[in-house]
Amino acid sequence: MSPDLSRFSINQMTVKQLSLPELTEACVRLGVPAVGLWREPVAEYGLDATAKLVRDAGLAVTSLCRGGFLTATDPAERARALDDNRAAIDEAAVLGTDTLVMVSGGLPPGSRDLTAARERIADALSVLAPYAGERGVRLAIEPLHPMFASDRCVVPTLDQALDLAERFPADQVGVVVDTYHIWWDDRAPAAVARAGAAGRIHCFQLADWTTPLPAGVLNGRGQLGDGAIDLRAWRERVEAAGWARPIEVELFNDGLWARDGVEVLAETVERFVDCAG
Amino acid sequence: MSPDLSRFSINQMTVKQLSLPELTEACVRLGVPAVGLWREPVAEYGLDATAKLVRDAGLAVTSLCRGGFLTATDPAERARALDDNRAAIDEAAVLGTDTLVMVSGGLPPGSRDLTAARERIADALSVLAPYAGERGVRLAIEPLHPMFASDRCVVPTLDQALDLAERFPADQVGVVVDTYHIWWDDRAPAAVARAGAAGRIHCFQLADWTTPLPAGVLNGRGQLGDGAIDLRAWRERVEAAGWARPIEVELFNDGLWARDGVEVLAETVERFVDCAG
Repeated sequence: MSPDLSRFSINQMTVKQLSLPELTEACVRLGVPAVGLWREPVAEYGLDATAKLVRDAGLAVTSLCRGGFLTATDPAERARALDDNRAAIDEAAVLGTDTLVMVSGGLPPGSRDLTAARERIADALSVLAPYAGERGVRLAIEPLHPMFASDRCVVPTLDQALDLAERFPADQVGVVVDTYHIWWDDRAPAAVARAGAAGRIHCFQLADWTTPLPAGVLNGRGQLGDGAIDLRAWRERVEAAGWARPIEVELFNDGLWARDGVEVLAETVERFVDCAG
Repeated sequence: MSPDLSRFSINQMTVKQLSLPELTEACVRLGVPAVGLWREPVAEYGLDATAKLVRDAGLAVTSLCRGGFLTATDPAERARALDDNRAAIDEAAVLGTDTLVMVSGGLPPGSRDLTAARERIADALSVLAPYAGERGVRLAIEPLHPMFASDRCVVPTLDQALDLAERFPADQVGVVVDTYHIWWDDRAPAAVARAGAAGRIHCFQLADWTTPLPAGVLNGRGQLGDGAIDLRAWRERVEAAGWARPIEVELFNDGLWARDGVEVLAETVERFVDCAG
């Protein structure tokens, strides 16, 4: 009997060595029903062409990555960021996904004020949330691991992401639950329940935590089962909070990227079944 | 007028290229009144010889680093860890410091259970805390940044360190407040106040947060002023919570270690005065 993959989605970044046609073909062949897409490779292949490709292949698009980077103080830079996020929302709508993943952004050069940076994110969301809502797109704020707090995301916990999201309607702004970023946090299980009860879990991603971390720490996300995270417990927790959609596996990993992409996809399917299926 | 260094202590690791005689001589010459020591270089120079050296130089010893690593499940390994920590407590007493810094330890190989690991730390502390108390030594639990949660320290927040400490008398077990590990945490300021009110701040260390992080992420702690942390705000916060002893500057930094140690010490004194003085 083939394994149940109805709740599995492959985030494109995990196998970024595959072109979009290669990815969709491999998904169909392996029985993977859904993908999470990234703006850059989508733009390269063409937005409408990508939408047609995945639609014709019968694949659901679980999210588009990513909007965000909303912490700039410079007015021109802020205006550019808002324009870029409106474009991302439009792209999500064309691709047929209702979820845009948002990475908040780090501290501007020379700044040491996390609180002020978070307020600028809230200001930007007050513009973007209704724009997204009108297009049937939900913004999903992704808390990143605290090791990214200065340079990528001033929102380091699920509770803080929820604090931000809860200023807006739940069908406009929610959160991403990604095991890689929150697994260490003893308050995260309660935050998952809080997010679920409020209808604010808009995306659920799995990656494992492996050490040693590589230089720059960005591309060290572990293949499922290789690391320290009890992935099945997290799946049960997030599903108990109401999550019933496909779960994205999103790995940034130089080792995986160096291998054959279809082989990595097949391995990732196996690991999902073994570790969280 | 020379700057007020009465509240400055140099942690030996910051200038580990200096021998103990070089370090004490440089401290005396620069007006540095206190040092934090590490067990390995102390053992190399000799415990009694080190105690005499710093005493004769008129230096206070603000802490000894480090005890801990109490998460093993193997009985023989646990017994060895307890023996080693008793030895560390004895060494602290000989050196004339009342503070032993404790790094809790990571997950044992193959384990994914943070909660159970934390309980084993509490079990070990129930043995070690009275032993320390009888010798006038306080155990200071150091929460490490969540990026170390799997391999070095399953206690990633100041609140969790306090939850552990509060199972024991305050004159036996407290916490280390180190800006490097907690700066990102919006709950840490309240935890500092909580720790201060309970008389459980047993050590206060400064380091700045700089990126990109190096491979392994251990030796990337930034020189004061080079990074994202508002060090003066943290000093004010910790002092408002009652801290009135010298503040250790503890930097693990390959770049600083490659330079002349006395020059690095002089620079660190200047940065302390500029950024947190």
